[in-house]
Amino acid sequence: VSSRMLSTFVGGRSGQWRIERSSAVVGLALPTASHLAIFENEPGTRALEQESWVLRGVTSYERYVHATEQARLIAIQPPLQRPQATQAALIPVKKSADWWRLPQDRRRAIFEERSQHITLGLRYLPAIARRLYHGHDLGEPFDFLTWFEYAPADAEAFEELVQALRRTEEWTYVEREVDLRLTKRA
Amino acid sequence: VSSRMLSTFVGGRSGQWRIERSSAVVGLALPTASHLAIFENEPGTRALEQESWVLRGVTSYERYVHATEQARLIAIQPPLQRPQATQAALIPVKKSADWWRLPQDRRRAIFEERSQHITLGLRYLPAIARRLYHGHDLGEPFDFLTWFEYAPADAEAFEELVQALRRTEEWTYVEREVDLRLTKRA
Repeated sequence: VSSRMLSTFVGGRSGQWRIERSSAVVGLALPTASHLAIFENEPGTRALEQESWVLRGVTSYERYVHATEQARLIAIQPPLQRPQATQAALIPVKKSADWWRLPQDRRRAIFEERSQHITLGLRYLPAIARRLYHGHDLGEPFDFLTWFEYAPADAEAFEELVQALRRTEEWTYVEREVDLRLTKRA
Repeated sequence: VSSRMLSTFVGGRSGQWRIERSSAVVGLALPTASHLAIFENEPGTRALEQESWVLRGVTSYERYVHATEQARLIAIQPPLQRPQATQAALIPVKKSADWWRLPQDRRRAIFEERSQHITLGLRYLPAIARRLYHGHDLGEPFDFLTWFEYAPADAEAFEELVQALRRTEEWTYVEREVDLRLTKRA
């Protein structure tokens, strides 16, 4: 996805996804909520009354992906909203000021050459569908919201991917991370 | 500048900078205004009544600068608001969807290896002070607002820099560009 599209993720009492679990991996947790609603724009203020939390992000251009990697991703990445993908995860992440001060080549080297972020993700395609939302320039509390969708049979593979990423050098720059697991309502 | 700071540029009847000239280089012009006011946040709605145009951008992390280039930039780039820098330019630029679809390495290659954007800029330091604001992820009409400050004696050098950038391969991806020239009010 290269074009900009704003999405708003609202934790509260309603929405298409039931929140099964919400864990603070690093730093502060999010307030408790039973459901997640996703809006493809700014929801009206009415929709947000009495909600527990609101996070926003935009799809945007690639920051680290190189041409050969982009070609492989385009060839095998699945779309969102596959009927069998009834489980999902929303993982909001904030990186440290030290990370953002690094020049582009140093961030790329940590991200891929040393942490293999793209390579790891490719290994779990097409099982795990993924979309990245950027919040840094919006001034949001999280720099990234990553949304994943998968079938129940791939839940273990997804867990492996998440654990592998958390062991990387890249993750030493993460200063806040929340991990939400969700199930689609019938 | 790596931390995020929102600025709002307002063209209207008041402000610290007098607009001497506003040209549409590519695409649509901006509405006429006599002065520019800059707010380091979101101005209240009252401040915007009867204004001609409003553009927003955020300072953000580096998208293309490598470590060696960053070190040279930090060593010689001047601060904004030098007393002798009574002239300024604001150059809003929007790039095409083709640009934004390119992977990171292809954009870097066009930006620096083939167009020498960073190298050209370094040649005019410390005469020309510069700050880049990002508008892409905000959904602004321009992807970038670049702000330049210089002394009257360096106006010709600045003109050279701008003309050199416009002849690059990078600039073939520019689909809208406005060039505003300003003088500081006494």
